[in-house]
Amino acid sequence: MLEHGGRLQRAAREYGIPVERWLDLSTGISPFGWPVPDVPASVWQRLPEDDDGLAEMASAYYQAPHVLPVAGSQAAIQALPLLRKPSRVGIIAPGYAEHARAWRHAGHRVTTQAASALLANTASWDVLVLIHPNNPGGERFDPQELLQAHAELAARDGWLVVDEAFMDVTPQNSLSRFTHRKGLIVLRSVGKFFGLAGARAGFVCAEPTLLEALREKLGPWTLGGPTRYVLRQALADGAWQTQARARLLQTSEQLTALLARHGLTPSGGCGLFQWCRRSDALALHRALAERGILTRLFDLPPSLRFGLPPNDAAFERLDGALTEVLQ
Amino acid sequence: MLEHGGRLQRAAREYGIPVERWLDLSTGISPFGWPVPDVPASVWQRLPEDDDGLAEMASAYYQAPHVLPVAGSQAAIQALPLLRKPSRVGIIAPGYAEHARAWRHAGHRVTTQAASALLANTASWDVLVLIHPNNPGGERFDPQELLQAHAELAARDGWLVVDEAFMDVTPQNSLSRFTHRKGLIVLRSVGKFFGLAGARAGFVCAEPTLLEALREKLGPWTLGGPTRYVLRQALADGAWQTQARARLLQTSEQLTALLARHGLTPSGGCGLFQWCRRSDALALHRALAERGILTRLFDLPPSLRFGLPPNDAAFERLDGALTEVLQ
Repeated sequence: MLEHGGRLQRAAREYGIPVERWLDLSTGISPFGWPVPDVPASVWQRLPEDDDGLAEMASAYYQAPHVLPVAGSQAAIQALPLLRKPSRVGIIAPGYAEHARAWRHAGHRVTTQAASALLANTASWDVLVLIHPNNPGGERFDPQELLQAHAELAARDGWLVVDEAFMDVTPQNSLSRFTHRKGLIVLRSVGKFFGLAGARAGFVCAEPTLLEALREKLGPWTLGGPTRYVLRQALADGAWQTQARARLLQTSEQLTALLARHGLTPSGGCGLFQWCRRSDALALHRALAERGILTRLFDLPPSLRFGLPPNDAAFERLDGALTEVLQ
Repeated sequence: MLEHGGRLQRAAREYGIPVERWLDLSTGISPFGWPVPDVPASVWQRLPEDDDGLAEMASAYYQAPHVLPVAGSQAAIQALPLLRKPSRVGIIAPGYAEHARAWRHAGHRVTTQAASALLANTASWDVLVLIHPNNPGGERFDPQELLQAHAELAARDGWLVVDEAFMDVTPQNSLSRFTHRKGLIVLRSVGKFFGLAGARAGFVCAEPTLLEALREKLGPWTLGGPTRYVLRQALADGAWQTQARARLLQTSEQLTALLARHGLTPSGGCGLFQWCRRSDALALHRALAERGILTRLFDLPPSLRFGLPPNDAAFERLDGALTEVLQ
């Protein structure tokens, strides 16, 4: 299993700084999460019901004809490779590593490449897996180009899988509204934009036959009642969503400007993080950690990902630390 | 996929009685659930962490040397058959049907029989799956007899799987404290005794090598943060647990007495339900449903399962309805 989470606790031990004194910029989770209300006791007590309206609300929010609630994108990432016989699978790199791991584990022939190389060569793949916008690189794709790639794959029973975990800030670029097309599979997550990473919940948008096969593989009750209760309200809260999008975009621009002022112009990013390639990424990561600021370090290529500082004080703290570190 | 849940909503439609006017005795979920506190916003926002103490608290509560938190027994039921090469599997019948379904689906040779037949013939199985106490039959087993069966199976790399979803009221009969033994796998659930069926959470008790293989199969984050937060407190609440056990046993005895007064002496049961074999089970189920009382109907053998009425008014309502129906 790949390692996830626990980074803040480990950093707290390694650098001798108590957890509560860190500025944690190591995730792509929105610091402006949807305000979760208290959950009624009955919701904890009763078995969840599939016909509680959650699927319909998700369908409306994602503009997707059909959706399946799942226990996070992770659950879908693990199950999708089990629904195909051995295939040639092209996967975006660098990117969220669980995709390649899951397809390899299920016995498929996996190639990881930059998206441009993958898309230039669709005839080589039975399945093409992209992350859009990519994490950590932030690459964007032209939806028309992706639909063209999908059409080529679908013509020979291939799949285009697009992990849109960071797409909520720019819904106009989502392919979810085209997912009635056979072989087009879009993964959405509520962890990042809604700031509900603790809920471990997501949705798969695809045509009904594939969703039914996936549902059969995952079994009943993939999401608990309290999560379903919270999601129904968050997905329906259009006013909050509009305001959150604007705030995230503005904060992400503010982060970009701050990084640029320190000579760290981002190589890529999106409304939820910015990403900087630096040959000295490791040293920079450590120097910031010594000052209680946790970033996400990537080895290949050497780079740092910065999540959004939650407020002015956090921006000032990052600004001050970068001044010290990069002087 | 087998059908689950939604029974109350369907009955409401079928009998033309609004959901809120039913006395729902169709589940084995405690009506005296653990009082769930409000969950802090930060728990919804942050990724769950494996080292939050939940496993240690479950280990103490179940007296099991090693435990793995899972998204309900259901998740373990589906994954365990994937960890063995094709085997001869004996499964208790009648019982929770997902066990047989999962083993068959994974390509094993499955035989379903009464527990007495299975246990009289352990040499025939590579894997023996029991439910203890059984649902709906309520059969109990002598722990020593089960440990003997396990020893025979384990000697040839076999497994004894015991689903103890209804065991919390009688912890002295649990095998969980013996699960350091190779090939002994005990499934526990927080849905019934703690009244947390909405959480979809459970624990697998087994030796570390098997738990690690299961963890690898299930992937990261099988439980969300809010569920982990609630469970840590419920599992540690010894005072509530003691009082709940007494109250459930007393209420279950009260239900047994009431049923017996109406000539419905239970064929079996446990602290969370009573089960009555009746050739006219279907007619009785319908007659009670017409009076807004939902029981769980089983076809093979024809029988009704009664969950615990939550209070005196519910007991009186059941008493009155049985008087009318059976006069």
